Amino acid sequence: MSTPLRLGIAGLGTVGTGVIKIIQKHADLLTDRTGRPITISAVSARTRDKDRGVDLSGYAWEDDPVALATREDVDVFVELMGGADGPAKAATEAAIAAGKDVVTANKAMLAIHGQDLAEAAEEKGAVIRFEAAVAGGIPVVKALTEGLAGNKTLRVMGVMNGTCNYILTRMESAGLPYDEVFEEANALGYLEADPTLDVGGIDAGHKLALLSAIAFGTKVAFEDVELEGIERISIEDIRQAADMGFRIKLLGVAQMTGRGLEQRMSPCLVPASSPLGQLENATNMVVLEGDAAGQIVLRGAGAGEGPTASAVMSDVLDIARGFRVSTFGRPASTLTDVVSAKATAAAPYYLRMELQDKPGALAKVATVLGEAGISIDRMRQYGHAETTAPVLIVTHKTTRDALDHAMTGFAATGVVVGDPVAIRIEAV
Amino acid sequence: MSTPLRLGIAGLGTVGTGVIKIIQKHADLLTDRTGRPITISAVSARTRDKDRGVDLSGYAWEDDPVALATREDVDVFVELMGGADGPAKAATEAAIAAGKDVVTANKAMLAIHGQDLAEAAEEKGAVIRFEAAVAGGIPVVKALTEGLAGNKTLRVMGVMNGTCNYILTRMESAGLPYDEVFEEANALGYLEADPTLDVGGIDAGHKLALLSAIAFGTKVAFEDVELEGIERISIEDIRQAADMGFRIKLLGVAQMTGRGLEQRMSPCLVPASSPLGQLENATNMVVLEGDAAGQIVLRGAGAGEGPTASAVMSDVLDIARGFRVSTFGRPASTLTDVVSAKATAAAPYYLRMELQDKPGALAKVATVLGEAGISIDRMRQYGHAETTAPVLIVTHKTTRDALDHAMTGFAATGVVVGDPVAIRIEAV
Repeated sequence: MSTPLRLGIAGLGTVGTGVIKIIQKHADLLTDRTGRPITISAVSARTRDKDRGVDLSGYAWEDDPVALATREDVDVFVELMGGADGPAKAATEAAIAAGKDVVTANKAMLAIHGQDLAEAAEEKGAVIRFEAAVAGGIPVVKALTEGLAGNKTLRVMGVMNGTCNYILTRMESAGLPYDEVFEEANALGYLEADPTLDVGGIDAGHKLALLSAIAFGTKVAFEDVELEGIERISIEDIRQAADMGFRIKLLGVAQMTGRGLEQRMSPCLVPASSPLGQLENATNMVVLEGDAAGQIVLRGAGAGEGPTASAVMSDVLDIARGFRVSTFGRPASTLTDVVSAKATAAAPYYLRMELQDKPGALAKVATVLGEAGISIDRMRQYGHAETTAPVLIVTHKTTRDALDHAMTGFAATGVVVGDPVAIRIEAV
Repeated sequence: MSTPLRLGIAGLGTVGTGVIKIIQKHADLLTDRTGRPITISAVSARTRDKDRGVDLSGYAWEDDPVALATREDVDVFVELMGGADGPAKAATEAAIAAGKDVVTANKAMLAIHGQDLAEAAEEKGAVIRFEAAVAGGIPVVKALTEGLAGNKTLRVMGVMNGTCNYILTRMESAGLPYDEVFEEANALGYLEADPTLDVGGIDAGHKLALLSAIAFGTKVAFEDVELEGIERISIEDIRQAADMGFRIKLLGVAQMTGRGLEQRMSPCLVPASSPLGQLENATNMVVLEGDAAGQIVLRGAGAGEGPTASAVMSDVLDIARGFRVSTFGRPASTLTDVVSAKATAAAPYYLRMELQDKPGALAKVATVLGEAGISIDRMRQYGHAETTAPVLIVTHKTTRDALDHAMTGFAATGVVVGDPVAIRIEAV
């Protein structure tokens, strides 16, 4: 096979230029590995006149990504524009309608329109690949779809938003409050234009929803991901958690329970000595658990020019090698509807609250827990210098329902000051 | 595509029965994922009458694996017998000659005959896949061959022999000497019939040689792997290393240097806080470094029924999906001959020696290092209660040549008692 594989690349930001650099720099290597040249027919971006540090003179230019996606001389449409709708979706749909294969880094588009796009691709015999949409340079889509294809997936977990992990580890190491580190991250350009995408867990939630679909053979159901961001994590909780041997991570967890698919993206306590607990800065980590393979941990850069471009190239080169796999690892028509279970899996919880410093206060809290059927694993009450005393409790396993019941109970005691903090402790 | 993919499985030990269990238990799941049924036509093993805990009644039996490998009704020959030569090689060659695809867990056979087998397969249009041969359930062959296909590989590292890592971490945690933990591991059934394969680094060396070929596009050159086992690692060195923030691992490192391909499988000091340093017990870890992706770390079970069977199934299912990739990720005819470089990459070293407790002894040692062009990063000399005093030195980066020169020099000082210990410190 020496027919070139011809790309049309839409979006010339960091990732797009990274892809072009790889193709220019490693032309021979890529041909050696796939048996055919990888070429670029045309590119497209919002602004034409801009120095991107790569030579684009050999490629046709299209102002309109739809026109790019449907060009005669394009075999694979590489969508690196981003955005769930708009030009990215229009061009992807046009590419598929024209029978082109699609490689995309667009987690939002797939998290929302993945099922429709996968069905359309299947009808046309085209493939959609999205390694770059999840955890940057880590080949996790491949590991799950192909590497663990012989497994029933038990659980998928991951720290998949580098910015959140940077903020949380920086708060801990520098002893700074959330707001201050948030501003720092912003100044460093780590945050999306809409920072809620990062710190609200939405971006990571998109990624989790995509992995869930592959793992459990369900239709992508981002709307069923229970989302909780890191905005309310205090330096106090980070310190107390550390003191008890835990670290707080924005952790995604997807698992099939007896009552349905549970998908959560929320702050969790994990053991400080676990691989997830040890994850520093903007690094990403995904943990895949299969009934045969056991626990597989993958760690790497979750963003950046090189890592994301590497993931895009992995998909492009698979296509060059003739690999054809359904978007979510099985025919789109066989993906099942999600029955969503809201955090039904029981877990221990970390609780922190301020108690009025008066006799019987602690007893009232303990009574509330007892009545909710929650037993206490560990408890700490701190010095009484103030009029309120901080109390930390680690519960034994309990359900979210029981916990919510207790949280209501705490308010009714009259001795709990402010809102108690409850953070799930995930067994990793 | 609903034609079944029909397997012939030779070798019904732990892995073989594990594969059969997956195929029986997850028949529908596998068909959903690949679009076709995965069936077993025939099996073969040394002993027929043995309860293996799986129902073999639906499969034809062959006493001779060669006969199995060439059956009309076998599409993929699954070789799980082991051994570099003998029946495994004969049956693999026969399968290839008959145009069958091969899936194998046999690192020894591929490390020694990989090039010949890959060439033979290519000629026949057959593929050889070997995910299960390296690091058990971790999909590392796939990650390197496909996931990082857009990268120039910079370095491959790994702790790929679970038994050795068990021994080293157990020595540290229990404070026991090597011999005692070796006996423990033996009693637990952790060691190969010939334990040198494990503790001598041979088994791990086979795995490194296979990854090297993929990473650097070179012919498999196991004979060029510099091998050093863990037999000489003392509890004293483990303790001293820990005290300085390091742990000792049997670490494989492959990298292309200006002078050729360097492949080492030897005990190394790595930072205790690094992912490799934190690796406990029999778990495996592989670190892949690409020029675009950066550092990717993969961690999981390196052995055992489930994990290894999962890896075998990954290859089988790729074949069912129609994926065709060259054995080492590019045509065998294009793999280059290895120019072997013996540990030319400079590194810091850990040195431990016993000095006679007399004036000027330390000066003599320091002079030897200075004359060899080796500068000292850190040095510790311990109490003088005995007639000899232990001295620990961490050097700055130096070459193995300079170090060997110094080692000879130490002997000539007349103040160094016994053989000094030198262990490379790997930057991970």
